[in-house]
Amino acid sequence: MHEHPLPVPAISNDVSSWASTAVDRWALRRIQATVPGAPIQFALWDGYELPSPSRPVAGTIRFRNRIALFSWLWDPDLNFGETYMSGAVEIDGDLVELLEAVYRALSPRQPRPWWLWQRSNTLQAARQNVHHHYDLGNDFYRLWLDEEMVYTCAYFPSPGDSLEAAQLAKMDLVCRKLRLNPGERVLEAGCGWGSLALFMAANYGVSVRAFNVSVAQIAYARERAARMGLSDRVEFVEDDYRNTTGTFDAFVSVGMLEHVGLPEYATFGSVIDRSIHANGRGLLHFIGRDRPAPLNPWITRRIFPGAYPPTLSEVFERALMPQNLSVLDVENLRLHYEKTLDHWLRRFNDAADTVARMFDDTFVRAWRLYLSGSQVAFRTGSMQLFQIVFARGGSNRIPWVREHS
Amino acid sequence: MHEHPLPVPAISNDVSSWASTAVDRWALRRIQATVPGAPIQFALWDGYELPSPSRPVAGTIRFRNRIALFSWLWDPDLNFGETYMSGAVEIDGDLVELLEAVYRALSPRQPRPWWLWQRSNTLQAARQNVHHHYDLGNDFYRLWLDEEMVYTCAYFPSPGDSLEAAQLAKMDLVCRKLRLNPGERVLEAGCGWGSLALFMAANYGVSVRAFNVSVAQIAYARERAARMGLSDRVEFVEDDYRNTTGTFDAFVSVGMLEHVGLPEYATFGSVIDRSIHANGRGLLHFIGRDRPAPLNPWITRRIFPGAYPPTLSEVFERALMPQNLSVLDVENLRLHYEKTLDHWLRRFNDAADTVARMFDDTFVRAWRLYLSGSQVAFRTGSMQLFQIVFARGGSNRIPWVREHS
Repeated sequence: MHEHPLPVPAISNDVSSWASTAVDRWALRRIQATVPGAPIQFALWDGYELPSPSRPVAGTIRFRNRIALFSWLWDPDLNFGETYMSGAVEIDGDLVELLEAVYRALSPRQPRPWWLWQRSNTLQAARQNVHHHYDLGNDFYRLWLDEEMVYTCAYFPSPGDSLEAAQLAKMDLVCRKLRLNPGERVLEAGCGWGSLALFMAANYGVSVRAFNVSVAQIAYARERAARMGLSDRVEFVEDDYRNTTGTFDAFVSVGMLEHVGLPEYATFGSVIDRSIHANGRGLLHFIGRDRPAPLNPWITRRIFPGAYPPTLSEVFERALMPQNLSVLDVENLRLHYEKTLDHWLRRFNDAADTVARMFDDTFVRAWRLYLSGSQVAFRTGSMQLFQIVFARGGSNRIPWVREHS
Repeated sequence: MHEHPLPVPAISNDVSSWASTAVDRWALRRIQATVPGAPIQFALWDGYELPSPSRPVAGTIRFRNRIALFSWLWDPDLNFGETYMSGAVEIDGDLVELLEAVYRALSPRQPRPWWLWQRSNTLQAARQNVHHHYDLGNDFYRLWLDEEMVYTCAYFPSPGDSLEAAQLAKMDLVCRKLRLNPGERVLEAGCGWGSLALFMAANYGVSVRAFNVSVAQIAYARERAARMGLSDRVEFVEDDYRNTTGTFDAFVSVGMLEHVGLPEYATFGSVIDRSIHANGRGLLHFIGRDRPAPLNPWITRRIFPGAYPPTLSEVFERALMPQNLSVLDVENLRLHYEKTLDHWLRRFNDAADTVARMFDDTFVRAWRLYLSGSQVAFRTGSMQLFQIVFARGGSNRIPWVREHS
């Protein structure tokens, strides 16, 4: 069994031996009232049920013991995940459909100034956060990602395209938006298993310096570069992107800004500024929000410590504006992430037995919830996927029309 | 001679009869130092000249009297325009090239919280501001706009396209981005002479309610609708868009947001919110900035009272975010406005004698400066032209890919 970073859940999955009381049933009604009208049935350990207020019913949420039940009163955002992960709460029915019913029943929240409490992702913290998630082992990710091992939103020219085709199409879209020319130099911040860096070098004739603090990913990427004969043009650096030096034609970052954290956006912008020349340009691809909101606390605790999906304004004002970088193009691809997650979740579920042998059932439930909840967040518009293209404010070497589409 | 709203300039264009003094020459050097390195020659009324510090020389700025000279020390942003308009300052050489040299020599300014002082554009103030500019007479605008009388940034699929073709292409781009279907209803806020409303009805089969507070423009638009047999499907309302009622499939506003003013953005957003249905969508086309900055004070005084070009963040945070509207697409077309203004300026200069007979030489100089300065602002990246496409946050009836390009 692989070691994984999910500690033993605090809430046991034992079935309560007591019959439910009037207080338990009051608690259940309180919980149901937080998702008014949602087509969900709620049930207790002894068979007591609150019927769904509407049809068709998306599923049943069943509490196996009293501690699980009361943990939801205390902090439902956190303890939905904690109790599902431990098995103290069971879901009958399709998890994605049930989560969608929950999301749609919750009223859009007001923006909160929660960033006041956000910790800064120092070099050391960033390394730990990445290790937590991305160093779970390449074997694990290979079970459910595409062949190229791309762990970011794909781009499906047609909704029926395969995940493999869509990840290639995404990388090509990024290259076209960056208007890469043979011989140019590209800086990549956060390169995953190296797919995009290798794609750019192989298909657009550029040379790339790509940063990543994940040991497992960099090792894998370097091996691929050697196998593809691209080691002379693609340099994989096992270091924080903030330590980069040199000047480049283009800056690209796909799926990393979510891990940077608002307090570091000014630094992120200044790294771009010192890394591209007078006619340099760049592309940012990241999970974002329409309005500021904290990431779900269970996701932050168990899946992505230190992560935060920003609004466009937060990126513009904190990272781009201070450096006089000019926004040329923004595209919102949230439905493409919904589709990507649909593919990942299917493959993950198909490989669930293997994952359980690698880790354990708790891990399988946690990741199933993470993938399902993410799919629903993009489906309901709770999260967005933005691609931003920018250039220096004074540069007129910018696209005349959208040739990339 | 037509009446025009430019009062007699405060600074006379008399040539000083005194020889220049040491103090005058000191003032001239101070003015030259505000545009360090710019390839511009400065001269006084008696022939004294400060040579350009670099070549090729873009032109000469010549002060005809001492009051003009000292007015530049006091407030160059305002009095460049005031003295050029009155004739107290003469420009030898190409005005656009000289202005570009000035813009490029000015260091990018720091964002200032100037909006603290911005007045709110009440219904009454908005009406006066519009009258000031747009009611100068259709005869005047016909001299230098395209046949369709479109007074906003065009879209040139190829840079060599005619202005006429580019304005049609712009209107078609807007319709494609809005994904208009026959029979749908569109609300237009600020419709100019009605070109877009009529284009949408004639080419996309929609019905349109279009608002404008300019008496002259609405009269012209209604006459066109009647002539085109579209009066039953295009309703031109001589009223403030804030007084609209009813529900529509799409909201569109081209070249009006610049006149709304930041304090009214929340109202602007709430008008959109109450006017589109659950799967409604919209497009905003407006002059903007990469960073907050006041409009040039001379432009504000003489050309566009109450105008302010916002940043994307200001539009997102104040107008769209409070209504949970989701940004789907942003395109920056600043080089297309540079090209549009190039066409307008050529036609205006060709018609200068006619304009001078309609108004006077002061008016000609003021408008030449306004058009030239605007062209240079877009060329140097001091101003941007943004098109934003948005939909409601919860709607999944959004484009899968960019079919409009």
